[in-house]
Amino acid sequence: MIRLDTQDAGFADAFAALVDARRESSDDVSRGVAAIIARVRAEGEEALVDLTRTLDRHDLNRTGWAIDPADCAAAYEALEPGLRAALDLAAARIRAYHERQKPADSDYRDDAGVRLGARWRPVDAAGLYVPGGRAAYPSSLLMNAIPARVAGVERLVMVTPTPDGQVNPLVLAAAHLVGITEIWRVGGAQAVAALAHGAGRIAPVDVVTGPGNAWVAEAKRQSYGVVGIDMVAGPSEIVVVADGANDPDWIAADLLSQAEHDTVTQSILFTDDAGFASRVADAVERQLSTLPTGAVARAAWDANGAIVVTTTLAEAMPLVDRLAPEHLQLAVDDPQALFDRVRHAGSVFLGRHTPEAIGDYVAGPNHVLPTGRRARFASGLSVLDFMKRTSFLGLDESALAELGPATVALAEAEGLPAHARSVALRLRLNR
Amino acid sequence: MIRLDTQDAGFADAFAALVDARRESSDDVSRGVAAIIARVRAEGEEALVDLTRTLDRHDLNRTGWAIDPADCAAAYEALEPGLRAALDLAAARIRAYHERQKPADSDYRDDAGVRLGARWRPVDAAGLYVPGGRAAYPSSLLMNAIPARVAGVERLVMVTPTPDGQVNPLVLAAAHLVGITEIWRVGGAQAVAALAHGAGRIAPVDVVTGPGNAWVAEAKRQSYGVVGIDMVAGPSEIVVVADGANDPDWIAADLLSQAEHDTVTQSILFTDDAGFASRVADAVERQLSTLPTGAVARAAWDANGAIVVTTTLAEAMPLVDRLAPEHLQLAVDDPQALFDRVRHAGSVFLGRHTPEAIGDYVAGPNHVLPTGRRARFASGLSVLDFMKRTSFLGLDESALAELGPATVALAEAEGLPAHARSVALRLRLNR
Repeated sequence: MIRLDTQDAGFADAFAALVDARRESSDDVSRGVAAIIARVRAEGEEALVDLTRTLDRHDLNRTGWAIDPADCAAAYEALEPGLRAALDLAAARIRAYHERQKPADSDYRDDAGVRLGARWRPVDAAGLYVPGGRAAYPSSLLMNAIPARVAGVERLVMVTPTPDGQVNPLVLAAAHLVGITEIWRVGGAQAVAALAHGAGRIAPVDVVTGPGNAWVAEAKRQSYGVVGIDMVAGPSEIVVVADGANDPDWIAADLLSQAEHDTVTQSILFTDDAGFASRVADAVERQLSTLPTGAVARAAWDANGAIVVTTTLAEAMPLVDRLAPEHLQLAVDDPQALFDRVRHAGSVFLGRHTPEAIGDYVAGPNHVLPTGRRARFASGLSVLDFMKRTSFLGLDESALAELGPATVALAEAEGLPAHARSVALRLRLNR
Repeated sequence: MIRLDTQDAGFADAFAALVDARRESSDDVSRGVAAIIARVRAEGEEALVDLTRTLDRHDLNRTGWAIDPADCAAAYEALEPGLRAALDLAAARIRAYHERQKPADSDYRDDAGVRLGARWRPVDAAGLYVPGGRAAYPSSLLMNAIPARVAGVERLVMVTPTPDGQVNPLVLAAAHLVGITEIWRVGGAQAVAALAHGAGRIAPVDVVTGPGNAWVAEAKRQSYGVVGIDMVAGPSEIVVVADGANDPDWIAADLLSQAEHDTVTQSILFTDDAGFASRVADAVERQLSTLPTGAVARAAWDANGAIVVTTTLAEAMPLVDRLAPEHLQLAVDDPQALFDRVRHAGSVFLGRHTPEAIGDYVAGPNHVLPTGRRARFASGLSVLDFMKRTSFLGLDESALAELGPATVALAEAEGLPAHARSVALRLRLNR
């Protein structure tokens, strides 16, 4: 953890270094991923069997390619009732929030008599990657599948590795809850390749979303354009802006909730109270000693954590914008005044009683958010990621008479005579 | 040109081959582009000077790095008045159409007392690539710049190569019309790298859009994630669905308006009238002989053109969906019935008096559209490409009491105890 003060000489350089610090893996997996994609395209199912045998240590033709929806239903029924109710609550609230994202079509006639508009339609099929092992989160499955469902996607396909053939019952339960019935036991770059290009029994999809390791992320990046993908995701991050009136333990827990995800995550506190800064630092140390995920969280906090002391909280806001954080908590009595100054953030958590973790699970907004300063230009996952817009245009003879001559002039100026001719013929101009 | 009939034996295979035909360059430019990006990142302006000297044959430090806005104003004033009026009309109509794309923010409180919403903001800076030479189209500049302006982007940067130092007056005039004042005389992959990463006097931007050759397209693809980009674009295509009551010459001109762009473009006619199909084929031949761009158009038509005869026009629609064309003309008296069956198309042109060329220039909808079957999942360029959405969330004590326990249950089930603790501490639960 580094501690900075805006009044220190050298603050500007130190903060710039914090902004520019790259936490993303620079491992060159791209050649390996390209080879896997090429293999899946050439060999189809055979490549999947072979790679799964090597990487996940089971034989798809023995364990079975698909996970039976009946197994998902059974996993859901077997959930401890409190947990099942929590999952139900989360799904219902995520659905309600995303229903409001459905875009409106337009269809109107303008002064020139031209009919204009745009029509949104869901993609035909979406593929959802769900990691295996430790990072297999049912909440992620809900956050990816529900927007697709709300968009109206008819075919929703899940791929997930099952190392040694083992499935994760929580993930199966979540799949049942959102009604996914096509589930393949394949993972890694080869699963993304199968979704993008198709491979035997796995028919290709139009959009691939969902979290994964560096190989999965690179496979999605290389498949961009063949299919749509959600944003390239990097390590998670949280920025907390807090005044001295907060309970240091609450804020410390918020910082650690990000740190426990992975050793490359980042947690940053901005405060206008130097004493509070120290109390939070102490509370972090105290909590780390009892946290079951303390080893990971400590590594992340030590390497990437920061506390920045500013003269006022207003002074913090342009600094926060430069970080464009994935998660931003504004832990003050009147968060609106600070929120009004935020330009770049994935999601904002307003006030002292809105810890970021609420947004990870049950609040409703999507927890798939732009990381690594991408909130400058990217948005969280939404219903729009599973839809596309078709514009349209209709002219009658009189509208064409009004717009045609300008089209002819521009097409000729651009050296495109067939463009000009397609209009001129209809206007009975001699060209 | 190939002619198919849905009643022929072998139609299914022949049509599948048409759908799968790849017209995109498979030239491996990716290594060359990666090298250029690495050079620009390492050497900054020096790399730009050197590459421009080699590729565009002029010295940036002599010809000047920037194009003077006064030169753009002069180019606009010097336009032939009819052409200037056409450009003005195009800009006004494009602006009016895109104004309607501006997304609405949301901010509401639900039954649990949770404040929820989403807020859209423009990106800070957008970079617009404008090709030099033959393909320097002022219309493309309008189509890329106006959505950014409507989004509210404050800094709009144009990069364009000026081979041998020569500028294109039409492009300068269009730049003046949309108010672009920051214009750099650099092109190619190096210009995209400078926009994405910054290079000396060229400050980095957040989004890069605009057409370019294979090197530019690959540089954008490799910069995806560092900045936002518009969709990877491939060769252009048009599908025309027409009954026998059309003038064959009109439809032939429509097919050729796409073919004249490039030898890799594709034009396909679907009709339910075999005699009309022959009349259009004859008209294409006749028009090719007098078309100034006939050599390019003939090469495209011969290699990639197709006429498909169906028993009914309704039969054509699922076939059109498989092609998911960039442009789709429905040249019939009642286009709505056919339009209702379209799932996948970039833009649709309704009726006999709506040639696609109208949409390229003055109608209003964007002409930057998904190609190569990408309309299955992608949309045309819009105001949304220059904005991003921040979700937000605000809970008070009572709302947290309602949602907190479910969050704790899910966080613990996922093995994330710090997530659970950040909520439990606020609920005064002992964890």
